[in-house]
Amino acid sequence: MKYYVGVELGVNHISAGLVDKSGKLVRRATGPTMKERPYQEIVADIAALIRKVLDEEGADVKNIRYIGVGCPGISNSKTGTIIRSYIAGFTNLPLREELQKHFNLHVFIENDANCAALAESVSGAAEDIDHSVLIRIGNGIGGGIIIDNCIYSGFNNAGPEIGHMVIIRDGEQCTCGRKGCWEAYCSEKALLRSIEVAAAENPDAPINRITENDHTRINLTTSFEALKAGDIAVRQAFVHYLDLFATGLTNIVNILMPQAVIIGGEIGKMGEYLLKPLRERVFSEIYTSEVELPEFKIAEMGSAAIIIGAAMLGLSKDNIEEL
Amino acid sequence: MKYYVGVELGVNHISAGLVDKSGKLVRRATGPTMKERPYQEIVADIAALIRKVLDEEGADVKNIRYIGVGCPGISNSKTGTIIRSYIAGFTNLPLREELQKHFNLHVFIENDANCAALAESVSGAAEDIDHSVLIRIGNGIGGGIIIDNCIYSGFNNAGPEIGHMVIIRDGEQCTCGRKGCWEAYCSEKALLRSIEVAAAENPDAPINRITENDHTRINLTTSFEALKAGDIAVRQAFVHYLDLFATGLTNIVNILMPQAVIIGGEIGKMGEYLLKPLRERVFSEIYTSEVELPEFKIAEMGSAAIIIGAAMLGLSKDNIEEL
Repeated sequence: MKYYVGVELGVNHISAGLVDKSGKLVRRATGPTMKERPYQEIVADIAALIRKVLDEEGADVKNIRYIGVGCPGISNSKTGTIIRSYIAGFTNLPLREELQKHFNLHVFIENDANCAALAESVSGAAEDIDHSVLIRIGNGIGGGIIIDNCIYSGFNNAGPEIGHMVIIRDGEQCTCGRKGCWEAYCSEKALLRSIEVAAAENPDAPINRITENDHTRINLTTSFEALKAGDIAVRQAFVHYLDLFATGLTNIVNILMPQAVIIGGEIGKMGEYLLKPLRERVFSEIYTSEVELPEFKIAEMGSAAIIIGAAMLGLSKDNIEEL
Repeated sequence: MKYYVGVELGVNHISAGLVDKSGKLVRRATGPTMKERPYQEIVADIAALIRKVLDEEGADVKNIRYIGVGCPGISNSKTGTIIRSYIAGFTNLPLREELQKHFNLHVFIENDANCAALAESVSGAAEDIDHSVLIRIGNGIGGGIIIDNCIYSGFNNAGPEIGHMVIIRDGEQCTCGRKGCWEAYCSEKALLRSIEVAAAENPDAPINRITENDHTRINLTTSFEALKAGDIAVRQAFVHYLDLFATGLTNIVNILMPQAVIIGGEIGKMGEYLLKPLRERVFSEIYTSEVELPEFKIAEMGSAAIIIGAAMLGLSKDNIEEL
C-alpha cells in the first residue's frame, strides 16, 4: 500500500495526513505551529507528525510516494521555498530542503488555497470538472484556479490573488495596500463588521437578543440564527454583502468562465441560501447568458482540503515528471 | 508547400490570408463585409478571397492544410457556429458548415481577440512566452488569454471578457449592461471622450489649435500631437486614463499573473510612453512585487494579427487531434 502525505502548514496549527490514491484522507495528526519559533523546530514537528500517522497506520517511510505541503502566502514550487507569508519570519524559508533533512523523499510545496482548489477538483465539489475556481471566504478571500485538472498559479507561482481585485476604486482600505478590493468588502470579517454596525444601529434587532447585546458574539452562527428569526437589519447587511459578492464573482466569471465556481469557508454552510441569490445576480449581470453557464457549488472537502490537495500535488500533470 | 489559411470576419471588412508554418503572412486579400446581406453571400465572398490569394500565389486548394476564421463575438469552436455577435444577424450562424460547402477542408472558428492573442504568442510580442494576456484597446477592451501556448477561452468558449470587469461599482454605464466596467473607462472611445471634455473646458489648450476647434478631429493622432506640444488639459485626461487603466490591469495581473501583458490597438503606437507609467502604477499596486514580474509589451502583429492567429488555430495542442 502506497500513501501520499499531505501537510498543512497553518498559522495556528500544523497537520499531517496520509491520503490514498483516490484522494481519501486515511489518517491525520495535528499540533500547534507556535509560529514564533525557528522554522527548523516547526519542520521537525511536521516530521514527527508524519511519523506519528505512519506509526498509527502501521506503515513505514518506504510506503510514502512523496510529501506535499500547503503553505500560507507565496511559495516557489520549483525551488521549494516559501517566498513571502503573512506569518512573520516565513520569508525565504527553504521548506523543501529542511523537510528533506528528515525524509529522503520528493517534497512538493504549494500555496494552501491552491491545494484546497486541487482537492475539490480531485475528489470534492469539482470532481469530473476540468476547469474550476475555488473561492475561500475567511479572514480574506483566497482562491485557486484549476485548468485542465491542474493548479494554475501564474508563471511565477504567485497567483492567483482573486481577492485583491478592485471592485470599488478608491474604496475601503485593503490589507494589501490597494483600496476597494473585493476582499475588503466580502471577507467573512467584512460581513461580520457590517452586521455589527447593523446590530448597533438597530437595538431591537433579534441579533442583539441572540448575542445578549455582546457584539463579540456576532459570528456566522449567531448571524444565521438572526436571519432565520427574521432579523431585517441583519438581512439588509447580508443582501448588501451578496450584491458586492456578486460584483466580484461576475468579474471572475467574465474573465475565466470556469465550468464550476466552488465557494469555501464557513459561510458555505449557508448552502443554497448563499448560492441561489449569487447565481441570480451573476447570471443577470454576466456578459452573455446565451451559453452554457458555470455551476455554483459549495466546497465539500472541509478542514481536510489543504492536506488532501497537498497530498495530490504530485499527481498533477505539471509535477508528475519530477517524480 | 503547405499553407494555413487565416480569415478575418470583421464588421466592415473580410480578409483572407495565406500563412506559412512559422506564422508569417505570405499573401492577403480584403473585401467589404456588407454585413446586412445574407450570411451565405458573405461566406461566398470569403471563399472567393481565399481562391484569390491562392491564385496570386500560384497555389491550389490542395496546398491548404486547413482554414481558421477569427470572428466577432462568441463562437462555439466545437460546433463551428457563431453564437452571438454584435453584428446583427450573426446569431447562431453555422459558419463552418457554410464554408465547407466551398472547401472540403477542416475549418476552425474562434473569437477574433483570442486569435490575435494566439498570433502574438506564436510569432509576435509573446513569442517564447508560454503564459500571456493580450489586451486590445479599441471601441471596447477585448482580450485573449494564452496558457501553455494555447488559447484559454473558458469551458464554454465564451471567455475571456476581461473588459467587462467592474472596477467602479455603480459607475459609468457599459454597453454590456453592467455599470463601471473597465471598458467603460478605458476603451479608446472613453479616452477620446475625456479629451473632448478637456478640450471644451480649456479653450486655450493646444488640442483646440491642432484640431482647429473641430472636435470630430480629436483622435489618438491629434491627441498625441497635443501631448507633445505640452497640452496640460490633454495630459491630465491621459494621466487619469492611465490611473484607471492600471486599476484594471493590476486586477488582471493579480488574478492571472501572466508572464507577459501585451497591449494592442492603435494606442500601442505610444510605446514606452504608455508602458512605462503603466508598469510603475501596476508594480506599486500589485499583491507582491517580491517575485519575478510580468513583462509589459506592445503588440507586434498589427492588422494581420487576427488572420495569422486564425491560421495558427490548428497548431494549438487543443485542436491538433481534430486534424
